[in-house]
Amino acid sequence: MKYAVRNPRNGQIDYYFDLPSAQQLQQSVDRLRQHQPSWQQLPLSERIAAMQAWKAALEKHQSALIEALTLDTGRRHESVLEAQLIGQSIDRWCRLAEAFFEPAADKVSAIPFIHIRQDLQPIPVVGVISPWNFPLLLGLIDTLPALLAGCSVVVKPSEITPRFIEPLMDAVREVPLLSEVLLFLAGDGNTGAQLVDLVDLVCFTGSVATGRRVYAACAARFIPCFLELGGKDPALVFEGANLEHAAASILWGSTVNCGQSCLSIERVYVQETILQDFLEKLKERAERVKLAFPTPEDGQIGPVISERQVHIINDHLSDALAKGAHVLTGNTCCEQRNGGWYCRPTVLTGVDHTMKVMTEETFGPIIPVMPFRTEAEAIQLANGTIYGLSAAVFAHDWETALRIGQHIEAGAISINECALTALVHEGEKQSFKMSGIGGTRMGPSAIKRFMRQRAFLIKKEPILSPWWF
Amino acid sequence: MKYAVRNPRNGQIDYYFDLPSAQQLQQSVDRLRQHQPSWQQLPLSERIAAMQAWKAALEKHQSALIEALTLDTGRRHESVLEAQLIGQSIDRWCRLAEAFFEPAADKVSAIPFIHIRQDLQPIPVVGVISPWNFPLLLGLIDTLPALLAGCSVVVKPSEITPRFIEPLMDAVREVPLLSEVLLFLAGDGNTGAQLVDLVDLVCFTGSVATGRRVYAACAARFIPCFLELGGKDPALVFEGANLEHAAASILWGSTVNCGQSCLSIERVYVQETILQDFLEKLKERAERVKLAFPTPEDGQIGPVISERQVHIINDHLSDALAKGAHVLTGNTCCEQRNGGWYCRPTVLTGVDHTMKVMTEETFGPIIPVMPFRTEAEAIQLANGTIYGLSAAVFAHDWETALRIGQHIEAGAISINECALTALVHEGEKQSFKMSGIGGTRMGPSAIKRFMRQRAFLIKKEPILSPWWF
Repeated sequence: MKYAVRNPRNGQIDYYFDLPSAQQLQQSVDRLRQHQPSWQQLPLSERIAAMQAWKAALEKHQSALIEALTLDTGRRHESVLEAQLIGQSIDRWCRLAEAFFEPAADKVSAIPFIHIRQDLQPIPVVGVISPWNFPLLLGLIDTLPALLAGCSVVVKPSEITPRFIEPLMDAVREVPLLSEVLLFLAGDGNTGAQLVDLVDLVCFTGSVATGRRVYAACAARFIPCFLELGGKDPALVFEGANLEHAAASILWGSTVNCGQSCLSIERVYVQETILQDFLEKLKERAERVKLAFPTPEDGQIGPVISERQVHIINDHLSDALAKGAHVLTGNTCCEQRNGGWYCRPTVLTGVDHTMKVMTEETFGPIIPVMPFRTEAEAIQLANGTIYGLSAAVFAHDWETALRIGQHIEAGAISINECALTALVHEGEKQSFKMSGIGGTRMGPSAIKRFMRQRAFLIKKEPILSPWWF
Repeated sequence: MKYAVRNPRNGQIDYYFDLPSAQQLQQSVDRLRQHQPSWQQLPLSERIAAMQAWKAALEKHQSALIEALTLDTGRRHESVLEAQLIGQSIDRWCRLAEAFFEPAADKVSAIPFIHIRQDLQPIPVVGVISPWNFPLLLGLIDTLPALLAGCSVVVKPSEITPRFIEPLMDAVREVPLLSEVLLFLAGDGNTGAQLVDLVDLVCFTGSVATGRRVYAACAARFIPCFLELGGKDPALVFEGANLEHAAASILWGSTVNCGQSCLSIERVYVQETILQDFLEKLKERAERVKLAFPTPEDGQIGPVISERQVHIINDHLSDALAKGAHVLTGNTCCEQRNGGWYCRPTVLTGVDHTMKVMTEETFGPIIPVMPFRTEAEAIQLANGTIYGLSAAVFAHDWETALRIGQHIEAGAISINECALTALVHEGEKQSFKMSGIGGTRMGPSAIKRFMRQRAFLIKKEPILSPWWF
């Protein structure tokens, strides 16, 4: 069966892929399962060598990858970044794996004559179901540590952005060892559901609604499940903050990739004494930002990738406007240009928590700004959400911002900056509330997620134990 | 509503407790939730001081606790051990917490001007649902690290063994700080199901069937879930092993606490060249072991605690005998004495994997022994199970046993000993297959399970970022 894919820049159906049959899926996973033990048994140095060979192959296929990602997403700048950053990402995970797998010495137990040796066993087949907003980056974020852990990995990217799979798999096929244990596979939601029934652990990045279904399916199968389900990240701006800086940072954090990022700033709370000043600076800067139209090189804000998201953005905007919000600059709804859907950086004022734009994930370049009086009120507003992915705090000095940030129920808090988890990968963090379940995706603990710890409790000599009958 | 409790030594109903109403449960959890933030905000030293005060109170109430545990379980020796070992266990967790919470220095990111600080936030209210085989030990195994992490904890022990709750809570009430954040609560399966709907994380120890329901309920609520669901632990005995030693160790490992232990040895595989020799030694030792009847002091093997388990043990025995197994020594079914149910250490020969006694958890003092020829066959038999909790290997030398043990799919492997996780608490381990889901219950990682990692990504000065628009 053919699946038809829309081009986000012109609305045309210009790409098709074959949906895998249940039998094909089963055979693909069987093959990964069959090859996993020998991948696991390789010395880490050989898994790293395979990853480095893949890095070289990806560089060879880089222009094809960028082309495909640009067609998938309609934006070029972020596609170039996605493709260029893989190499760094592979290097970083290889370094982390080297440190992670350093053998530890045996321990001596408090129980006489017992020594303890630890090891880690990879979970054989990991399934990754990844979204359309950063197809390559989010297809790899769990895949790289899982491969280095010694797992086989099958990745099912979003059916909205499947074009990058072909050049990516071309690079995989150039590394025979890796091609036995890694498969990117085009498919739709049903393919994802079928995969959950075949693998031993699932990593899912996407919506809360689908994530909850994935969790239920993993519970039914009795396998572990790691979910990252988006956010409604707040930015807090306090009196005394450098407002030029805060406005520039928040503008970037809320509109980069057309706001299609889980860690996008989606709510801005500003102390009322500086509200007007901040809004002026934000408006002026927002109006300098250009749509990437008619060509991807013409500006910073590409099209909305998913047509379904257009309806959500429009719904949030019209709901806010109906309830009294005001567009300081930007759009009242997405605009169609040459078949693609676009939205300018849009600053909303007069917003409150009765509006969807302040409570539900918008995933667009919308910046609703709401005033607060006190620190306590700001913290309450920031935490007044079902999400807890990340947040940002701007204040007179970093110590003050950090002290306030420590009250925020979220995994990553940028201090005097926005959305830093997009760039800083060294901090271990977990999701709060509906933003996710499971261990950190960053740092050495991310590798451990894909392994089970074993303890060998060793009695070296056959000596009588005092507790025996 | 009153719940009636059976005494395992005489079959009489001699204890009643009130089942909590939905409203009472809600109020109890609300109270724990309300006090959790101040518990979390205490310096660790004060949480440790509260734990130490509790330890002192438990020593004061120790004889009442032992009395209640003995009535609950019908066995005294293990009840004394459970009560006496709490103090050590509290001390061990306090030491681990001190090391765990040592503040780490901030890191400098590869991204210019960004510093990273990590912290950990406790999950507010942890629910623990614990089983009847070691009521105190398994009621505390997750509770102690969760309390030290800064969580509130509500524990719902099995309705089969609720008597120990009163003296335990007497000791809790002597430490006002602790009594605000820790509650042991008598209830049945329905109480447990209601608790899952009120807490933020569930730790469950018990059967696979109930554990799967708990996992599904946690998925529906979108909360994390840690399960430990029993095992069918194998012991492997190879030619060259010290057979006196192996027989004594396996006898203890399979019959201590009347075999009512998740980490009990439930299958023994012996190399065929030494089978007869091993069986003679095992039989001779098994026949020396006495039932703890008529008084708990009269022997090592107490009554079967749960009447439902009697039917499972009898079913496994009759299934094995019908399929050709032979009782070398012991019982063909549980025997009733003065209203309690007892079973002698029972060695079965002529067993194979078509029998329930080799594939399902028996939870009784049954030792089925099956021969193997080769190492490969032994490993295949050991791994031929839906469980993967722990295992034991005996061989000529510990290096050989360890090498073989590394092929076993289980969390803890005792080398030249049995069931060492009962006594050795320093090894981090996870469950394989149906034996469980979630992180280790031992070592510092056990504390981390009850917390979420946060990363603060700090820009100290408001400097232009090169990636901004």
